[in-house]
Amino acid sequence: MGKDGNQILYRTAIAKALSDDVVVRGYSLRSLIGDLSIAGMCYLLIKGERPDRNAEKMLDAILVASSEHGVRPPSIQAARQIASGGVQFQACVAGGILALGDSHGGAIEEAMVLFDLGLSGVKAGRSVKDAAAEILSDFKARKQRLPGFGHPTHAQDPRTTRLFDLAREFGIFNDAGRLAESIAEQSQEIMGRRLPLNVDGGIAALLTAMDFDPKVGKGIFAAGRIFGIVAHVLEEKVREKPMAHLPSFDLIQYDGRELES
Amino acid sequence: MGKDGNQILYRTAIAKALSDDVVVRGYSLRSLIGDLSIAGMCYLLIKGERPDRNAEKMLDAILVASSEHGVRPPSIQAARQIASGGVQFQACVAGGILALGDSHGGAIEEAMVLFDLGLSGVKAGRSVKDAAAEILSDFKARKQRLPGFGHPTHAQDPRTTRLFDLAREFGIFNDAGRLAESIAEQSQEIMGRRLPLNVDGGIAALLTAMDFDPKVGKGIFAAGRIFGIVAHVLEEKVREKPMAHLPSFDLIQYDGRELES
Amino acid sequence: MGKDGNQILYRTAIAKALSDDVVVRGYSLRSLIGDLSIAGMCYLLIKGERPDRNAEKMLDAILVASSEHGVRPPSIQAARQIASGGVQFQACVAGGILALGDSHGGAIEEAMVLFDLGLSGVKAGRSVKDAAAEILSDFKARKQRLPGFGHPTHAQDPRTTRLFDLAREFGIFNDAGRLAESIAEQSQEIMGRRLPLNVDGGIAALLTAMDFDPKVGKGIFAAGRIFGIVAHVLEEKVREKPMAHLPSFDLIQYDGRELES
Amino acid sequence: MGKDGNQILYRTAIAKALSDDVVVRGYSLRSLIGDLSIAGMCYLLIKGERPDRNAEKMLDAILVASSEHGVRPPSIQAARQIASGGVQFQACVAGGILALGDSHGGAIEEAMVLFDLGLSGVKAGRSVKDAAAEILSDFKARKQRLPGFGHPTHAQDPRTTRLFDLAREFGIFNDAGRLAESIAEQSQEIMGRRLPLNVDGGIAALLTAMDFDPKVGKGIFAAGRIFGIVAHVLEEKVREKPMAHLPSFDLIQYDGRELES
Repeated sequence: MGKDGNQILYRTAIAKALSDDVVVRGYSLRSLIGDLSIAGMCYLLIKGERPDRNAEKMLDAILVASSEHGVRPPSIQAARQIASGGVQFQACVAGGILALGDSHGGAIEEAMVLFDLGLSGVKAGRSVKDAAAEILSDFKARKQRLPGFGHPTHAQDPRTTRLFDLAREFGIFNDAGRLAESIAEQSQEIMGRRLPLNVDGGIAALLTAMDFDPKVGKGIFAAGRIFGIVAHVLEEKVREKPMAHLPSFDLIQYDGRELES
Repeated sequence: MGKDGNQILYRTAIAKALSDDVVVRGYSLRSLIGDLSIAGMCYLLIKGERPDRNAEKMLDAILVASSEHGVRPPSIQAARQIASGGVQFQACVAGGILALGDSHGGAIEEAMVLFDLGLSGVKAGRSVKDAAAEILSDFKARKQRLPGFGHPTHAQDPRTTRLFDLAREFGIFNDAGRLAESIAEQSQEIMGRRLPLNVDGGIAALLTAMDFDPKVGKGIFAAGRIFGIVAHVLEEKVREKPMAHLPSFDLIQYDGRELES
Repeated sequence: MGKDGNQILYRTAIAKALSDDVVVRGYSLRSLIGDLSIAGMCYLLIKGERPDRNAEKMLDAILVASSEHGVRPPSIQAARQIASGGVQFQACVAGGILALGDSHGGAIEEAMVLFDLGLSGVKAGRSVKDAAAEILSDFKARKQRLPGFGHPTHAQDPRTTRLFDLAREFGIFNDAGRLAESIAEQSQEIMGRRLPLNVDGGIAALLTAMDFDPKVGKGIFAAGRIFGIVAHVLEEKVREKPMAHLPSFDLIQYDGRELES
Repeated sequence: MGKDGNQILYRTAIAKALSDDVVVRGYSLRSLIGDLSIAGMCYLLIKGERPDRNAEKMLDAILVASSEHGVRPPSIQAARQIASGGVQFQACVAGGILALGDSHGGAIEEAMVLFDLGLSGVKAGRSVKDAAAEILSDFKARKQRLPGFGHPTHAQDPRTTRLFDLAREFGIFNDAGRLAESIAEQSQEIMGRRLPLNVDGGIAALLTAMDFDPKVGKGIFAAGRIFGIVAHVLEEKVREKPMAHLPSFDLIQYDGRELES
């Protein structure tokens, strides 16, 4: 309840609108415009404090790495199908975001939880290599898929390699990245097959290094991918006719019961 | 049909995934990471070419100006209500994006169309002032609301002022911005009430100056606002219980027929 | 403002929850369960009064006609793509609903507006045939597509024929249906090509005959189609692996700039 | 791969469109219109076979019980907030559906899984009462919330009572319902507080009795609730102005850092 007995419906520590400005985490939005990049704003909005310049550049690189991967992923297919139904721009974008579920970017959150677990072992005195081996053995025993490792087309995910090089340059690379690399390195020996760190796992290691809440992992990925989705929705609306992507009848197999005669 | 008789389901000029990289508008994604900001990536993805440094910074500032305006707008209320139903992170974000309709950011596209119209008059030889006056007279005659002008709480939108200062600094300010300012200045005289340029109108003028397709106006606004939405969804999930924002019974008025007895 | 100075946030004449029942448009939900079909409930919720038995059966038939049309429409493709991303059931369904835009079921609302216009002519003394001819001439002059008429695969939409037969049986068929039929009949002569009444147009004529607000046309179609969408989402989740429908690389044509070397 | 080497993109056993009809689960859609209710269609679409008349009426009653519960639930609040942003009808409806997450109708699926577990004990020879007691003891030991039991406002959920009476009348009531009732009855003794069967739990028991896949539980609830959502979206669009439900500034508490001076 508020001080005068009115029910408080929404509490927030993120922002409030004033008549001549907007307070964002204690800063003036007017002053932030032109001073902080949108990547830095992402950091400020989520974590409640301004990033230093290196963290700002690291998060910027993560957003760029997340932004686009061609037309095949479900997020792009869904956004373009929805656009072809004659739908408002923002609703097509929302449909693309919807598809970023547990199997499509969702590994970031799961890998962050995994790395947090491994790092608590490191803090308790284990070596990074042992903590990595323990995670691998555990997943092998439970026959579960390791979130953030393995990729259908990339043997070594080029986006991860680049992000880790930048993290080293920016002084952000720490035990979270070392743990992720050690899991990949020992995967052949312990799991019996080579599991390269994919971009989800790489982003997860760097968000863990910057101490983000795992719950927001998919949110940051979505905030990067929205830029690709917007470009695809525009292309669909400008270039294609409505209902453009109906697969031809030849490509669809109906294998249910036939009409009774 | 493709050249070998296979049906082409999707054509795209935006990106394609390779086994060791992703081509984005002819550039290597691996190389873009750490080289181009996400704001620059936004420009590249949508317009198909890399921005110069000033256009990159201008678009960055537009994204920051769009990112957050407190808890009251429908986009945030919808995202938080959906989160309170126990919904996956990305789907809450999608619900917030959905709300960015014609009355909530939609004025950007409409104002861009308006400015394009006015600028075609300028190109045909009219002065910016006359083109602005013509638009005002036209809307007055049709008794329509001018998209991008007027605001319930801000007499002078502080975000617009700041964005225009930056545009001048970056050498991006041109007749689109002058036209927008002239409409605001002459509104009292022609329409009979002062219509300040709001943030939608300010962003529209600058996207027009940078020659963006009006159709993508709401998409760019959504790409900025997603950062605020992500922060609010996280806050809701971390801080509130499910079903947290049910208005109290006292605050809801049922004014339908009562139960028959 | 409420009687005690509190702001009324939501007013509604649809329903209110009591401690031991829910009032719906003045009726007890407990009593409606088992007494009124969901089609009748649809009528009561939207129009505020119980339908007679014939209107209930007519609306039921409209919902059934809307419920399913195979795997090809964007609504089903989008729902299944989203499901393949590993997304909660209801969010996949929501993604399918999203796709029901202006080009996919949206003709219902547009055709209802058109029929209302034609019927106002009939009320003013014109014959149904003349009113139909006038609409056709008008659309021919403006070179616009007639909403609710024409279909890529059905020469005579079998669903419309069946719905109109039922409408005659239920005593619901009136000038709205006659106007729709007359437009189809005269299309060859006036427009130069035969435009059969499609299922959108047929549903529009019957919703007009039952005096529904055109704005709700797409909502009723969505309420029918959700049953098909739910079945497809279940099939996708039970039968397919995540990321199942990625088109093969061969079927996607990238026609943008190639990577610079 | 298809018989001629083309990749099969989509397989489905639900429906296919013909030039003059649509096959739905082996039946002609044209013949189903007017012959089967939308509730029966729901059964046919999901389960692949036509229901008998009693199952059709039972599912109809479940859909009616799900359709409306006033303006307070997140699904309605989200749909109306989105509508107030100036959004297409179907996208507002989709936003409402989105909110039907784990905490809002999601208990149906969880309770169905629970009842399946209990019933497998009954099949193995335990009494219904013992199976119910075992579930209660198990949840007490794990300190978890029982899905489908307990309600903030209803001591005895009137919708559940009515649904169970109908199930008895229709010959559908079986051990699933008995198990649900026995859990509620023994809750005071074993858990230390009375947990009435709520409408989610009641629907779950009846869907289990009719042998539905638990995965579709939330889908059926969504298919019922869409009718209420459609009515609320229409009311919002017809009756309220855009941006209508902004809570007043007095009702929002910003508890973050203040602007630095």
